[in-house]
Amino acid sequence: MATYICLTREGAEESDLRELADRITALGGTLETRSAGGRTLLITKADSAVVLEAELTRSAQVARIFDGDRPHPLAGREACPERTVVDIGGVRIGGGRPVLIAGPCSAENPDVLMEAAAAVKASGASMLRVGIFKPRTSPYSYQGLGRDGLSALRDARQEFGLPIVSEVMSVRDLDAVADSVDLMQVGARNMQNYSLLVEIGRTGRPVLLKRGMAATVADWLNAAEYLLAYGCRDVVLCERGIRTFERTTRFTLDLNAVPVVKELSHLPVIVDPSHGTGASRYVAPMSAAAIAAGADGLIVEVHPRPDEALSDGDQSLDFEQFHALSAHVGRIAGALDTGLAAAPESLMAGSLPTRNSRAHD
Amino acid sequence: MATYICLTREGAEESDLRELADRITALGGTLETRSAGGRTLLITKADSAVVLEAELTRSAQVARIFDGDRPHPLAGREACPERTVVDIGGVRIGGGRPVLIAGPCSAENPDVLMEAAAAVKASGASMLRVGIFKPRTSPYSYQGLGRDGLSALRDARQEFGLPIVSEVMSVRDLDAVADSVDLMQVGARNMQNYSLLVEIGRTGRPVLLKRGMAATVADWLNAAEYLLAYGCRDVVLCERGIRTFERTTRFTLDLNAVPVVKELSHLPVIVDPSHGTGASRYVAPMSAAAIAAGADGLIVEVHPRPDEALSDGDQSLDFEQFHALSAHVGRIAGALDTGLAAAPESLMAGSLPTRNSRAHD
Amino acid sequence: MATYICLTREGAEESDLRELADRITALGGTLETRSAGGRTLLITKADSAVVLEAELTRSAQVARIFDGDRPHPLAGREACPERTVVDIGGVRIGGGRPVLIAGPCSAENPDVLMEAAAAVKASGASMLRVGIFKPRTSPYSYQGLGRDGLSALRDARQEFGLPIVSEVMSVRDLDAVADSVDLMQVGARNMQNYSLLVEIGRTGRPVLLKRGMAATVADWLNAAEYLLAYGCRDVVLCERGIRTFERTTRFTLDLNAVPVVKELSHLPVIVDPSHGTGASRYVAPMSAAAIAAGADGLIVEVHPRPDEALSDGDQSLDFEQFHALSAHVGRIAGALDTGLAAAPESLMAGSLPTRNSRAHD
Amino acid sequence: MATYICLTREGAEESDLRELADRITALGGTLETRSAGGRTLLITKADSAVVLEAELTRSAQVARIFDGDRPHPLAGREACPERTVVDIGGVRIGGGRPVLIAGPCSAENPDVLMEAAAAVKASGASMLRVGIFKPRTSPYSYQGLGRDGLSALRDARQEFGLPIVSEVMSVRDLDAVADSVDLMQVGARNMQNYSLLVEIGRTGRPVLLKRGMAATVADWLNAAEYLLAYGCRDVVLCERGIRTFERTTRFTLDLNAVPVVKELSHLPVIVDPSHGTGASRYVAPMSAAAIAAGADGLIVEVHPRPDEALSDGDQSLDFEQFHALSAHVGRIAGALDTGLAAAPESLMAGSLPTRNSRAHD
Repeated sequence: MATYICLTREGAEESDLRELADRITALGGTLETRSAGGRTLLITKADSAVVLEAELTRSAQVARIFDGDRPHPLAGREACPERTVVDIGGVRIGGGRPVLIAGPCSAENPDVLMEAAAAVKASGASMLRVGIFKPRTSPYSYQGLGRDGLSALRDARQEFGLPIVSEVMSVRDLDAVADSVDLMQVGARNMQNYSLLVEIGRTGRPVLLKRGMAATVADWLNAAEYLLAYGCRDVVLCERGIRTFERTTRFTLDLNAVPVVKELSHLPVIVDPSHGTGASRYVAPMSAAAIAAGADGLIVEVHPRPDEALSDGDQSLDFEQFHALSAHVGRIAGALDTGLAAAPESLMAGSLPTRNSRAHD
Repeated sequence: MATYICLTREGAEESDLRELADRITALGGTLETRSAGGRTLLITKADSAVVLEAELTRSAQVARIFDGDRPHPLAGREACPERTVVDIGGVRIGGGRPVLIAGPCSAENPDVLMEAAAAVKASGASMLRVGIFKPRTSPYSYQGLGRDGLSALRDARQEFGLPIVSEVMSVRDLDAVADSVDLMQVGARNMQNYSLLVEIGRTGRPVLLKRGMAATVADWLNAAEYLLAYGCRDVVLCERGIRTFERTTRFTLDLNAVPVVKELSHLPVIVDPSHGTGASRYVAPMSAAAIAAGADGLIVEVHPRPDEALSDGDQSLDFEQFHALSAHVGRIAGALDTGLAAAPESLMAGSLPTRNSRAHD
Repeated sequence: MATYICLTREGAEESDLRELADRITALGGTLETRSAGGRTLLITKADSAVVLEAELTRSAQVARIFDGDRPHPLAGREACPERTVVDIGGVRIGGGRPVLIAGPCSAENPDVLMEAAAAVKASGASMLRVGIFKPRTSPYSYQGLGRDGLSALRDARQEFGLPIVSEVMSVRDLDAVADSVDLMQVGARNMQNYSLLVEIGRTGRPVLLKRGMAATVADWLNAAEYLLAYGCRDVVLCERGIRTFERTTRFTLDLNAVPVVKELSHLPVIVDPSHGTGASRYVAPMSAAAIAAGADGLIVEVHPRPDEALSDGDQSLDFEQFHALSAHVGRIAGALDTGLAAAPESLMAGSLPTRNSRAHD
Repeated sequence: MATYICLTREGAEESDLRELADRITALGGTLETRSAGGRTLLITKADSAVVLEAELTRSAQVARIFDGDRPHPLAGREACPERTVVDIGGVRIGGGRPVLIAGPCSAENPDVLMEAAAAVKASGASMLRVGIFKPRTSPYSYQGLGRDGLSALRDARQEFGLPIVSEVMSVRDLDAVADSVDLMQVGARNMQNYSLLVEIGRTGRPVLLKRGMAATVADWLNAAEYLLAYGCRDVVLCERGIRTFERTTRFTLDLNAVPVVKELSHLPVIVDPSHGTGASRYVAPMSAAAIAAGADGLIVEVHPRPDEALSDGDQSLDFEQFHALSAHVGRIAGALDTGLAAAPESLMAGSLPTRNSRAHD
């Protein structure tokens, strides 16, 4: 039994697809449809790969055809002749120049965020990361500003012109987050929260997908496949450490995943050395190592006063440490004949990526 | 700084709590409130444990006080003088007699469900498990019947009088699932989906909480703590295998967790040998081992024709194998001076646990 | 290219084998010989499995032929039509009745050993375990009595008539240990110490092979294969916990390995819940679980006064706890229609297994 | 109870130490002695740290005193005011310039070795690695040339002037290997083979200590502690991958260990990306990453024709790939303001490190 995954042309109507479904049924095959952003995803099966592919190729409704018998039809290396470059407000992730994303673990208050944004921009960050919904292990720990923090994100975005990365933890908050940030993050603990992946996928918006702490690379690419299958085009993978028996680091940052992902997928991959190690003193060497391994960027926790941070202070750099890290990884990038990506020249207010506008073109 | 977690008396109003908040503030402490089912959860802190505890004890609004400096204030062993027994339609989990829960991985169609329900009941199961929302690794795999399957659950429940366990994957489906099943399951992949835990907690309904595949026992009890802190009282823990380097089994079923959980928590713990091993031929020995280790029950995948199952066929028992397993674990339970829990004598239609009616009494 | 592993008849001389080697060379194949106790092991390869097998079958020098293309030619399930039963001084491991092996982690002095031997025998142990060479993580920790302890082992053996299990850590001590104990143990840390395996194998003496803490079941069976390929016939496997991310137990005792090994190998398998959990309070439930899972025995640390033990006191049972454990696992064995193996009626002084006498008959 | 570990002055006699032992006994303390190369190691304990330290400081027999209550008295960071630089025939490991060690997994025949030695030297390697004793998972796999290969090592050493690294697997071969190689390797599978560590330690010769695949960093430093406590001074640590659940790489190369070891120990640390990943295509990026993380060198498998290698062909680079790797990591080292270590200008025949000559001076 051969399987092909297809994306229809934009604007294809259900009635247009009925004829195709009939023809595939006539071949003894099956066609299942799913809404995927502005398009429809088709899961087609038939006994003969040749006959099925011919039928799909002939259909005016079908825009792209992917081999469904590969492990990751849309996320796999063969799905895309060229590597995917994800453009976030002018910052190109996967475009050759490593991207430095930095900011506080949580926006405890707008002042901390503004202070950090100014400092990381001055030190070479081209995007700002900040948490307002925080997945905390204990229900009694500080849980982030929540929706009240979204306006602080928009303010920082406008004032410093840096695209914003922030985590979305619940479908309840999806629309609000999508309207305030440039790159939505799916955290490690939600990597296999499939209902969240489906709904985020349908927005067609770019996603930063962190690797689950028990996720094999195959699991991780399957999570990316969910996002792509439901309408995302722009997925950035992020290695952030896996669970092992070792105890000197909070997790084991798995840099092997960088060349492995480059081989198995066309998607860009960045590295989070802050959560991956859990200790600020290991962030600089592991950042340099990540860039040398070929990562497309770093996402680093920076706080004005790590000792006072309400979460993750142990793994946050202060401004001076981040400035040194930026120079250090810049030298490594230089040795690879490139340099760090620059911040966008002008990031328009209200210029958040349109939903689904460019999904799977 | 001392921390106490408190549950207010039912019906306590915000105005009633304001005075308490003022008194704690006057002590230099803090009081934070969260809605927890029909009550309010208070997170109180002050420099002096003695003074703070005295203030809380004196308050008419405070029903119960827990030591917030323990790792798991509500889920930990010290929170409850006696072990929690979770009563699901008359089936008591944690009450001394191991409970046998069985059924198909997914209700592919109502007939399979009815066929399986009849067989597992005849062989000694006292509850029926069945998936209608399926967290599948690939977006192209069969995803379950979804909401369309809920009526099949209700039909099976009524016809066979067995309480139903089924997974809820999204807050979108929470109300619908809560109205159709007796025991809502949080799957391994959602164990740290905190926004789901919070909303389920608020229903006050019983929950089967599977251990995440990278979750330490401490992480798992923290997830239970979320449920308890937001209004659940009845949490059943379920060990289902962790990720290790070993490859002969799909996961490594960690039976050590059974005595560990018994030591650290008052909550009952059952074992899923089907997902834990991923192979039907290992289910019987690991079931026997789980009961011998002290587990309060088993949840086992059973399918009329495992070869034809749309998901997890490799790990499903057929009816004959399940019948043998039931007899086998019954003998083990007998050696422990007990026996398997019986199915409920009469399970009323519409007798689903009332939401929050008995949360934290 | 087909591979067959052969054992020659006892007494086959090199000259006898030369002709066979010539014939295999004439077929375009190869023959490599290795000393394996009283016999010779042949590793033969040729293009045609049929032709090679015919040649080997015809040879009067070849006693047994094993398929070298199977993962574990000698240790694998197919190598032996019946399960191997290892007879240690009359105690049959793998013979249906679980064997209880117990004793102190280390023989700190002869009195402790004698005291423990008397107690564990009275409570139902049929073999005595005791360490005199101790693999300690720190070079400054107590390292065991060493060779000075061997006479204590012999004294205890004679006085109580229990066969002795003790670890051998170095080829330097191999002869001395072989002359004093009934069952030599290879510890987890030496499971892939191949030069030790080879030399132990050549003695032809029974071996208790503990699983390495990072060893897959396949690795473990390969270590057994070394012992068998060099002359052992009697290998008892012992699960003792693997390294995982979980921290409430010192290791994760992997009981799944019991049914897995039963499926993949003909060798008996026992379980060490003391090292596997690292905590005496988990030893009883995990012992019961091991027997329920089908283990052929248990090896348990017992000390007169665990608080005073020079090593592993945290995981040692006192006499009363061991007595209760023995009764408890006896009941579990009873539920499986069997009972614990009895101690040997009379264990002759000097009746240690002869070296190689029965290797591969 | 305070513990101090001491090294005596060279030439201290047992009689000299008796007086010290008497004085410590008079304090109510204990003194245990162990032979440690040309010196004696003292393990001293007493109730009062101050009194004990004063006694030891006063003794003319005591050359150095280490705090025995630290996790790794000799291997830990505090034991040595400056980082240890290990000089192997003029190549300084840990001296600032990363050292490139390369060669074939096994010297299948002298020609392969000579061919590889010429090529890796031409491409910038400063030391030659080659296996003649091979720890193979299967007893039927190629086991290396064994002792017959030692002369080939000496020939290559003399012809190319590169110091040799090779594994010693058994105490039986220890003297022979010590007389033929510059840096003896303890393999991952023998990292906790304590009797081997003790005997190697007593030679006082430099050791490359690979991390066990289940070894925490603490376990690894304890193994180094064994070597140091028995007479080695020059231990080079080598990260080579740990066992995790991930399956795209053979092991998970744990580069986090590089900065962790730099923090916890004064010993140099190098990285083996060949065994760590198990795939030649990941060796270059992980080599660059290792250097960027701060590793003191690399040990890389190189073979003239990897497809024909009798072991580890999948992970071996060919000459062209190694040449590119050398240039690549050279650029990374350049970005860190250093460069690769050069091969020794002249390596005298017979200039193998004298045993114990400089142990603990």
